[in-house]
Amino acid sequence: MLQKATRRQSKDHNKGLVLRTVYQAGWISRADVARATTLARPTVSTAVAELIDQGLVTESGLGPSVGGKPPILLRVEDDSRYMIGVDLAESEFRGALVNLRGAIRRRLSLPIHELDGEAALSVVHRLISELVQASDRPIVGIGIGTPGLMDSRRGVVRNAVNLNWRDLPLGDMLETRHRLPVYIANDSQVASLAELTFGNGQNIANLIMVKVGRGIGAGIVLDRRPFYGDDSGAGEIGHIVVESGGRLCRCGNRGCLETLASTRSLVQRAQSMWEDTRPSALRNLVASPDDITTGVLVQAVEAGDEAVRAMVAEAGGYLGQVITPLVAGLNIHHIVIAGSMARFGKALIQPIQEHVNSHSLRTLAENTHVEASQLGQDIVILGAAALLLSQELQLS
Amino acid sequence: MLQKATRRQSKDHNKGLVLRTVYQAGWISRADVARATTLARPTVSTAVAELIDQGLVTESGLGPSVGGKPPILLRVEDDSRYMIGVDLAESEFRGALVNLRGAIRRRLSLPIHELDGEAALSVVHRLISELVQASDRPIVGIGIGTPGLMDSRRGVVRNAVNLNWRDLPLGDMLETRHRLPVYIANDSQVASLAELTFGNGQNIANLIMVKVGRGIGAGIVLDRRPFYGDDSGAGEIGHIVVESGGRLCRCGNRGCLETLASTRSLVQRAQSMWEDTRPSALRNLVASPDDITTGVLVQAVEAGDEAVRAMVAEAGGYLGQVITPLVAGLNIHHIVIAGSMARFGKALIQPIQEHVNSHSLRTLAENTHVEASQLGQDIVILGAAALLLSQELQLS
Repeated sequence: MLQKATRRQSKDHNKGLVLRTVYQAGWISRADVARATTLARPTVSTAVAELIDQGLVTESGLGPSVGGKPPILLRVEDDSRYMIGVDLAESEFRGALVNLRGAIRRRLSLPIHELDGEAALSVVHRLISELVQASDRPIVGIGIGTPGLMDSRRGVVRNAVNLNWRDLPLGDMLETRHRLPVYIANDSQVASLAELTFGNGQNIANLIMVKVGRGIGAGIVLDRRPFYGDDSGAGEIGHIVVESGGRLCRCGNRGCLETLASTRSLVQRAQSMWEDTRPSALRNLVASPDDITTGVLVQAVEAGDEAVRAMVAEAGGYLGQVITPLVAGLNIHHIVIAGSMARFGKALIQPIQEHVNSHSLRTLAENTHVEASQLGQDIVILGAAALLLSQELQLS
Repeated sequence: MLQKATRRQSKDHNKGLVLRTVYQAGWISRADVARATTLARPTVSTAVAELIDQGLVTESGLGPSVGGKPPILLRVEDDSRYMIGVDLAESEFRGALVNLRGAIRRRLSLPIHELDGEAALSVVHRLISELVQASDRPIVGIGIGTPGLMDSRRGVVRNAVNLNWRDLPLGDMLETRHRLPVYIANDSQVASLAELTFGNGQNIANLIMVKVGRGIGAGIVLDRRPFYGDDSGAGEIGHIVVESGGRLCRCGNRGCLETLASTRSLVQRAQSMWEDTRPSALRNLVASPDDITTGVLVQAVEAGDEAVRAMVAEAGGYLGQVITPLVAGLNIHHIVIAGSMARFGKALIQPIQEHVNSHSLRTLAENTHVEASQLGQDIVILGAAALLLSQELQLS
């Protein structure tokens, strides 16, 4: 029995190794898999045969001949499995069927209209059920990115203020209901995984991701693994006070980073200065302050509205104030800004970079680069899928 | 040949494992070593015999009998080897012979009188030579903690402003001259290792150490290993600007943390307020502002000088400003303050803790504890020894 179990484990291990090698190579011959893995040729052939049986790998074209017959190339069948990625965003819950390369095959959003507690939970269930039904491929599992404090190891939401969830065993509940493996992490932590797996971070070890939308959070990746901290709260930077006695924050404190650099705070400021504002790009875009959204402000900056640009730059300065100690403390070169504030591009990124440069040791700052993520609004969905890719399939 | 080499490696590996087990246990019988390591009894006995031959382990007393003969207990001979720990501090270079438990057996300080470049380097050589000569035990190696930016992997000092060292291959130079293994790291990073190995951090995974003396730096320990960052600069927090347009710093910038929270800045402020000061504890301690030192200010606070206490509290607030983003970003519970500012104890620690509490999310702050290191002024020497203990002896 023991020997059997051991043989089975080593077979599974070899199969996983072969799958990972094919996945990372793109196209590769059996002989090259054997060389890369140092597994014996017959072991590779057996594993490949099983992976082909399971539909995960296909034979796809011929490689260049090196004397004899040209070798058959293998590749991972990117759409052989789907992963369910879910973003419990503030205004709506978004989910998608994601293929093994991070391509979104089907998308679904359900508004939550200030729902919380049980009602919000039932929306999560509905979202997942509909995605499961919509899928014509086997599903790897469910990945969830949620705002708030998480205990990722146990899949428990410790505190999500907006949803009024406290110590909710979301992981167990979803697993019981949907009978699929479930992985949950904080949305900013998950976003950092997306950048590493499907974004510009595919070749780097360390990354600081700052997600700035209606809320603000960071995801810190060290040696290609998310760092969760002593109780999974790493990255909760949105409620650092950066203006003593400043505006009241929804957390109860005053002058938090979120009151000065979130999209919510930006829209509020643009609305409040509407009356004072001289004819500007912003006034050409909307008729009333009530129509101002983040999208409108992005357009205003693109149209050359200096007042809005100055507001965005100021938000960048406040973000820089919190990012600089992280840069100096950790000496990480890659700082990525994601979330809807990233849509401002250079107008936001440059002031952050300038703050870091002027507020830390030159030797540290000169190698530190702040940039906007290219993954757009799908970043949490993709990160939730990346969680499955690494935890459930060991593919990244 | 290959088989021989492999057998030799596995023998060395087993011996290391046995040594580590005895070291960590304090006192332990051969049978318990076998149980703890899952090595066969004869393998343990062979390894123990060799370790006794080398003088590293001794038989020391008898354990409680469990039926038969009481078992002979083994322990590591703490003074069988010495490690040379060196602290390239600002005003003097300090070194010591340290035993395997971090006890200092011999101490040596050489003043450096503003020496830099080659001259400072020759003081390092002299310090080490004298310690080597003073030792009547075999020496494990040389560990060095130095201020400034280091490339620890290559043993190169990238930039130590005060010593005027730039891209100095200190590791190679010392190894060639003294024919001993050399390990070098930044002094604050090394201090964090000391706390982990010989201080209060022996049972924790993550630690933020902030060393505040004439300079300010941090050492970040993650999963019990120092985190050096993308180019070994992690922890360079002393030159984060916390007061825009503030006092000129020796780095060329203005308002750096060091201009507001270092011992140097504190002494300068106490001197400059001397004239305005009403009769106070400070005036009872020294006759002239030129006699003010950090030690005098510590005494003044202990004697109830409210003006000095307020200055220390203000420094604590500035430190808190830089520590808070690290706490929120990393969610690390243990924050330890070391260096000569730690001598102010509660007068410094409490304002830092209060700043962290009031400037970050309550859920994060409530588990975060700021405390003063108990290791005193030997912390860098001990950390340099800890570097050898882990890198050269694999004992921690």
